[in-house]
Amino acid sequence: MDHLLAAVDLGSNSFRLSIGRVVQLDGKAQIYAVDRLKESVRLAAGLDADKIICEEAIERAITVLKRFGERLSGFHPNRVRAVATNTFRIARNVGDILPRAEAALGFPIEVIAGQEEARLIFSGITNELPPSPNRRLMIDIGGGSTEVIIGKGFEPIHMSSLYMGCVSYTRQFFPDGHITQARMERALLAARREFEGISKQYRKTGWQEAYGSSGTAKGLIAVLQEGGMSKKGITLEGLELLKAKLIRDGKVIMKELPGLKHDRSLVLAGGLAIMLAAFQELKIKVMAPGEGALRMGVLYDILGRDSDHDKRDETVRQFIKRHHIDTRQSERVKRIALQFFSQLDLSDDVEKEDLQRTLGWASDLHEVGISIAHAEYHKHGAYILQHADMPGFSNDDQSLLALLVLGHHGKINKLSLLEPTRGKWLTLLCLRLAVLLCRRREDHKAGLPITLEVNGRKITLKAAKAWLEAHPLSEFSLQAETAEWAKAGFEFTLVET
Amino acid sequence: MDHLLAAVDLGSNSFRLSIGRVVQLDGKAQIYAVDRLKESVRLAAGLDADKIICEEAIERAITVLKRFGERLSGFHPNRVRAVATNTFRIARNVGDILPRAEAALGFPIEVIAGQEEARLIFSGITNELPPSPNRRLMIDIGGGSTEVIIGKGFEPIHMSSLYMGCVSYTRQFFPDGHITQARMERALLAARREFEGISKQYRKTGWQEAYGSSGTAKGLIAVLQEGGMSKKGITLEGLELLKAKLIRDGKVIMKELPGLKHDRSLVLAGGLAIMLAAFQELKIKVMAPGEGALRMGVLYDILGRDSDHDKRDETVRQFIKRHHIDTRQSERVKRIALQFFSQLDLSDDVEKEDLQRTLGWASDLHEVGISIAHAEYHKHGAYILQHADMPGFSNDDQSLLALLVLGHHGKINKLSLLEPTRGKWLTLLCLRLAVLLCRRREDHKAGLPITLEVNGRKITLKAAKAWLEAHPLSEFSLQAETAEWAKAGFEFTLVET
Repeated sequence: MDHLLAAVDLGSNSFRLSIGRVVQLDGKAQIYAVDRLKESVRLAAGLDADKIICEEAIERAITVLKRFGERLSGFHPNRVRAVATNTFRIARNVGDILPRAEAALGFPIEVIAGQEEARLIFSGITNELPPSPNRRLMIDIGGGSTEVIIGKGFEPIHMSSLYMGCVSYTRQFFPDGHITQARMERALLAARREFEGISKQYRKTGWQEAYGSSGTAKGLIAVLQEGGMSKKGITLEGLELLKAKLIRDGKVIMKELPGLKHDRSLVLAGGLAIMLAAFQELKIKVMAPGEGALRMGVLYDILGRDSDHDKRDETVRQFIKRHHIDTRQSERVKRIALQFFSQLDLSDDVEKEDLQRTLGWASDLHEVGISIAHAEYHKHGAYILQHADMPGFSNDDQSLLALLVLGHHGKINKLSLLEPTRGKWLTLLCLRLAVLLCRRREDHKAGLPITLEVNGRKITLKAAKAWLEAHPLSEFSLQAETAEWAKAGFEFTLVET
Repeated sequence: MDHLLAAVDLGSNSFRLSIGRVVQLDGKAQIYAVDRLKESVRLAAGLDADKIICEEAIERAITVLKRFGERLSGFHPNRVRAVATNTFRIARNVGDILPRAEAALGFPIEVIAGQEEARLIFSGITNELPPSPNRRLMIDIGGGSTEVIIGKGFEPIHMSSLYMGCVSYTRQFFPDGHITQARMERALLAARREFEGISKQYRKTGWQEAYGSSGTAKGLIAVLQEGGMSKKGITLEGLELLKAKLIRDGKVIMKELPGLKHDRSLVLAGGLAIMLAAFQELKIKVMAPGEGALRMGVLYDILGRDSDHDKRDETVRQFIKRHHIDTRQSERVKRIALQFFSQLDLSDDVEKEDLQRTLGWASDLHEVGISIAHAEYHKHGAYILQHADMPGFSNDDQSLLALLVLGHHGKINKLSLLEPTRGKWLTLLCLRLAVLLCRRREDHKAGLPITLEVNGRKITLKAAKAWLEAHPLSEFSLQAETAEWAKAGFEFTLVET
């Protein structure tokens, strides 16, 4: 069991479960797929005009996730990562759906941003391709978003997530299934418009190989090749022939299109428009199938987290540099915050490891908002951490970081609305105390004779009397914490020892 | 009249009007004060617990502003700048007060951020001091905020605005005027706590001269010198003697303190606590009076705007660099946006010049949000421009920049809540059209055969037929503008010519 990893991909069109086996090969870990499940859920088609997913679509999703959960029973949470993409990003009722989905699956589900999706897709395809010195273009047309990446080796150069997909476009431009010249032209123009914003940069960088990785790409390859419209892969001529044929037929007719699967036929028109727009705007000549994509990217990411290559550490390092963070101060704060954390009794808290890691990153980044303005920098920091592209972090990871940074200074009652768990409150406590004690931006060379004791919602901070007398400003601030924590339902007491 | 400039400083304790005459000296412009009015308004004392300024205080303010307005009648708006500081920054009912205050004064009033206040104070004091190779520390204890600056020559090195002032501290710690040892110690600790966050950095940089520029500093100098507590300027010993005396007397007794003016006596205790905290935390030895401060800074700023040294241009240049903005694209957008603007008939709009200048800056900065994330970068850009320290820009300037950047892309109905004037809507129109037409990030080498005509709320965009046919994506997007502008109550029509 130890060498198995599992990825769940909750896409806008289909859900996928992939189980991989880790094999060490010449000192490098490789993942071999050992099991794969794919279910068409067409979640994006269940979105109404107000961006609410209807109950029927939710139930389809829950049924599938229960089946996946059965297959995953016995997996350690560290070995499973479930990611949800565009439809979860935009659905207004995602807050109601996620808990039900997580209960059905039995594992937490992370909603990831478009950029993170692009990064994982690139990693997945790259890991499945032979090494090459070439730049590679990859296009993944999903149900609700389309990811476009250029990369070389294992380094992405450009990554974009465009807000269009085969499900949403088919619904928008071909709502009743009828395909006309005018409808197809409108869909094409809208899709080309999306590519227009990135095409110059991508073409300037250029590539030698192009890959299409989603069900749309594979479906098109099958239809084009088996229908004699292309010899190998996807070509502009093949796409134009297919477009002409669909317009002539007036709709997608299965028996006219050998190679086409039923669930793909439902979203073929939208997918074709997007792919054709990509070919026209990016001037692609030929596209080969790319294997792996998001699900393999997720598996390789779990592998990285197991080893010492957690992508998130690298991201935090880059943020520290980009925002010119004073690392002497952040390291000072981190040391003390983690010391306090180690004194907490969270042994039965399943979040403990996550919280500790996040406390480290939040310490690293707590002053990131100063790059916008010093006044209310904690709020600016929270804004940045909530909204920035942070490779490796899920939306939930970013929300927790933002919560800690928002609360590390100033009043804490505003955080109550976010309903932090007790574990999160206590993690915040460690950061607040560390920042407060490091306000002078100097090392505590003589050590810090302060210990933290927490029982239930009683917080006791014990500090040496002589130290408090020598540090009246710190004592003054520590006393003020009592009133703050009362607002969060904690009894905070400073005790002289 | 041409060589007169006027600054109005709406402070938390007093309002000041300064009129200066510009004199060219050795090729350098100098400003000589020709008239000065000062009125104690104690606006900060009119703030209630909910941060609402009471009607009585508002009326005191309005009366004073009317008097100032009389003195300023006949001044060209370009020659007057009125700035409001901390109490206006924090008052919840500032939206009701500002229009009344502006009507009374007859000129627009800008609420400025603490950093901007610090910059102007530094500029004002520096311009009034003889040139020196020394680093200079300046402290301005206002009614509601305290600005602390170190600078050398005309370049500020550190600038801070701390959230405490002589009015707010006197109210908070000595509400009934009684002065006790315990109360004074609490006020001191609270003030030291504010300085603690900056003291290390400031002391590391160091200074050779220290200046105090506000009424608090001048009042203290008068009291200390005339009372024999200090020979010259403010010293730590003098402040300690005064503190002991106030505690002994139990309150401020005018006849015990020669040199003290009545309106200063009302806020002496809070001002003393803050000044003493500054001396203790920053280890200041002696402080001399600094003349000019905010009002002279404002006058020199108007002078800069008249010449080709508008501080705001420099700020925009720095932002472009700091946020790695693609200037080829922003210049392209700016050129076309300003072209459209020149076709608008805004001749009777008093805002016209401001709008045009702001359109230029908004074009320069419209992609600033990409430094946070590409997804929804227009929202991130608006956030940055609203919250960042932008030397030379008032809060209103920043709000307008943020509005233009927020609306340059995506839906515009969200802006209706901000109630833009017609002039602002049309300025936004120019930016939107320019961005839309430059989406491909390429120069329009053959020119752009498109003209803009606006009558009332009817917008007509005329484009050459051949051009539209050659640019179907642009046409598609221009057509979509009709629906957007309808939401803002404009009729947008694209006409082929």
